[in-house]
Amino acid sequence: MRVASEGDGKAIPMYAVVMAGGSGTRFWPLSRKARPKQFLTIVGEQPMIQATCERVSTLVTDDHLVLVVGREHEAETRSLFAGRPVHVLVEPVGRNTAPCIGLAALYLQRLGCREPVAILPADHYIADADTFCRGLTRAERLAAEGSIAILGIVPTRPETGYGYIEREQGEPENGTFRVARFVEKPAMEEAMKFLKSGRFYWNAGIFVATPRALLAEFAAHMPEFRHGLDQLGPIDAPDFPAQLDQLYRGTQSISFDYAVMENPLHQVYVVPADCGWSDVGSWYSLYEVRHNTEQDEAGNVHQGRALSLDCRDCLVLNQSRGMVVTLGLKKILVVNSEDALLVADLERSQEVKRITGLLAESDSADLL
Amino acid sequence: MRVASEGDGKAIPMYAVVMAGGSGTRFWPLSRKARPKQFLTIVGEQPMIQATCERVSTLVTDDHLVLVVGREHEAETRSLFAGRPVHVLVEPVGRNTAPCIGLAALYLQRLGCREPVAILPADHYIADADTFCRGLTRAERLAAEGSIAILGIVPTRPETGYGYIEREQGEPENGTFRVARFVEKPAMEEAMKFLKSGRFYWNAGIFVATPRALLAEFAAHMPEFRHGLDQLGPIDAPDFPAQLDQLYRGTQSISFDYAVMENPLHQVYVVPADCGWSDVGSWYSLYEVRHNTEQDEAGNVHQGRALSLDCRDCLVLNQSRGMVVTLGLKKILVVNSEDALLVADLERSQEVKRITGLLAESDSADLL
Repeated sequence: MRVASEGDGKAIPMYAVVMAGGSGTRFWPLSRKARPKQFLTIVGEQPMIQATCERVSTLVTDDHLVLVVGREHEAETRSLFAGRPVHVLVEPVGRNTAPCIGLAALYLQRLGCREPVAILPADHYIADADTFCRGLTRAERLAAEGSIAILGIVPTRPETGYGYIEREQGEPENGTFRVARFVEKPAMEEAMKFLKSGRFYWNAGIFVATPRALLAEFAAHMPEFRHGLDQLGPIDAPDFPAQLDQLYRGTQSISFDYAVMENPLHQVYVVPADCGWSDVGSWYSLYEVRHNTEQDEAGNVHQGRALSLDCRDCLVLNQSRGMVVTLGLKKILVVNSEDALLVADLERSQEVKRITGLLAESDSADLL
Repeated sequence: MRVASEGDGKAIPMYAVVMAGGSGTRFWPLSRKARPKQFLTIVGEQPMIQATCERVSTLVTDDHLVLVVGREHEAETRSLFAGRPVHVLVEPVGRNTAPCIGLAALYLQRLGCREPVAILPADHYIADADTFCRGLTRAERLAAEGSIAILGIVPTRPETGYGYIEREQGEPENGTFRVARFVEKPAMEEAMKFLKSGRFYWNAGIFVATPRALLAEFAAHMPEFRHGLDQLGPIDAPDFPAQLDQLYRGTQSISFDYAVMENPLHQVYVVPADCGWSDVGSWYSLYEVRHNTEQDEAGNVHQGRALSLDCRDCLVLNQSRGMVVTLGLKKILVVNSEDALLVADLERSQEVKRITGLLAESDSADLL
């Protein structure tokens, strides 16, 4: 078994929970209900959920991986990980991250896991996997001692679209800091102060804790849900899905950040990580991520059969069999799939949600 | 038989030659080698070659229609006009308009036609068919008296992309003028003077003359070609295609304007026609034509399954089965076919030729 090791040579087996329950439509027309972002190959060579597992493969063996997915994506997940001894947990309905993490913590506790567990969103991009894994290893040591340790992404711009983590004043202990507070998405002026201060980090929702610590937090903050978890029968029992369905339907949709992190029982540490992270939250964000490594001399990023004349700063993704030709465009997004095409101002690509809304109202719900 | 009549009630049977030998690629990805512009339904409800015939159907009966097409388009032409007694002449290779008109004149002379013949490009757009036909009828009367009568399109802008016809000074005779000279594409300053003077018309290459007059012009200006025409055996003889092939291969590619009209034997008249003409020479030109009747409140023109959000002055043609969605675009052209997609700055759409050039050099010649 491969295990994490750093510094003192002491090795701790590490687990990871990969949260893949999202159902986003921000990457329409590639993302669909049946295939959300974490199953798309939009950066790199494999679907994001596989890349997420691959990235931590030096720390986490397959049999320590727990993938949490929606019911409608179970088959695709099992297919992608066929022949690998990963664990797959199926959520009956999406209820944001808190119930997902609670279910995974219960599952791991029942497996007998007392070791730290990394909680990883399945659909983020990280340019520097080595730096990322070093951060996780540091976080793991803090978690093994009973704390919750969250990665703090070193900010590179005054981003107003992310939550922030403020560290306490003072010197780091082994490269980590106590967390002073979590801050919701700030206004631009505040974001610029955060960036300048050097004491704020982006909250990527990536953290490490033991199942025991997590379940204690749920007992304190979501006691009814925690009680429901305890009442669940064996996971391989025939009525387990129905029990879980009942529990989930009675539970509010709430993020772990909001439910727990704002007022945790445990000491929370932040481990700064300058690892080239992006949540890849829009086509524009994807362009920025791919732009760093793939742009041509005019700033264009192409995928698939495509020909470009006199274009600048365009993102052209062609997943159809046909040819895509672009001429004289600037900052335009072209995404071509077999049954739908999107052409948009790249800087307005966050408005793709409006499209899926309109399609739902029209007679084109087949394209969702 | 329907015949033309105007004013004095005298009726002349009218013939028409529809020149459909073009092989343009300016409407890529819809136009292909196998299907040039005249076979596309890009404006109105039918292919342009059919619309051209339909437009003069009050003047020209089917059995007086001569369609001149390239060898590779004979089958499609016969299919489009199946069951109709039109004449189809097949050119072995393209040699511009002069040989095409010479061949048609010979064919009609052999049929015994002594009446005026309207020469019509197969791929032009005319908004006002009534005004157009009134112009042809006037031209027909002049042609019946032994002249060549050319339609002069009343200019609406200082266009530098067309040739012009200058009329002689003086009062019109029955709405027509003698031609002073033909002018090649002018510079902008000159074009503005033309527009202001009121004595210049756009040369659309649409004129009326008898086969006899036409053949006399060829005898004077292209004597070798005319001699070759005279040597051709019967059109239904087995070796006729080979004879015609030999004649065409030995003939230069030259326009009728250049070969004949610059120095004609016959008197040439211009018949002014303010009929909403366009040669539809580019995607932008098509946008202008369709824009007049089809634009939405934001100046967009759509065809096919398409959804538009916050777009202005865009042309979106979708001939694929899938959905096309556009978001936040301005003056952008989107043309989607089953095997190729073009997205371009609408005002640079004349550069489509560069694309077909690049495709020819690449491994994508199947898309030409």
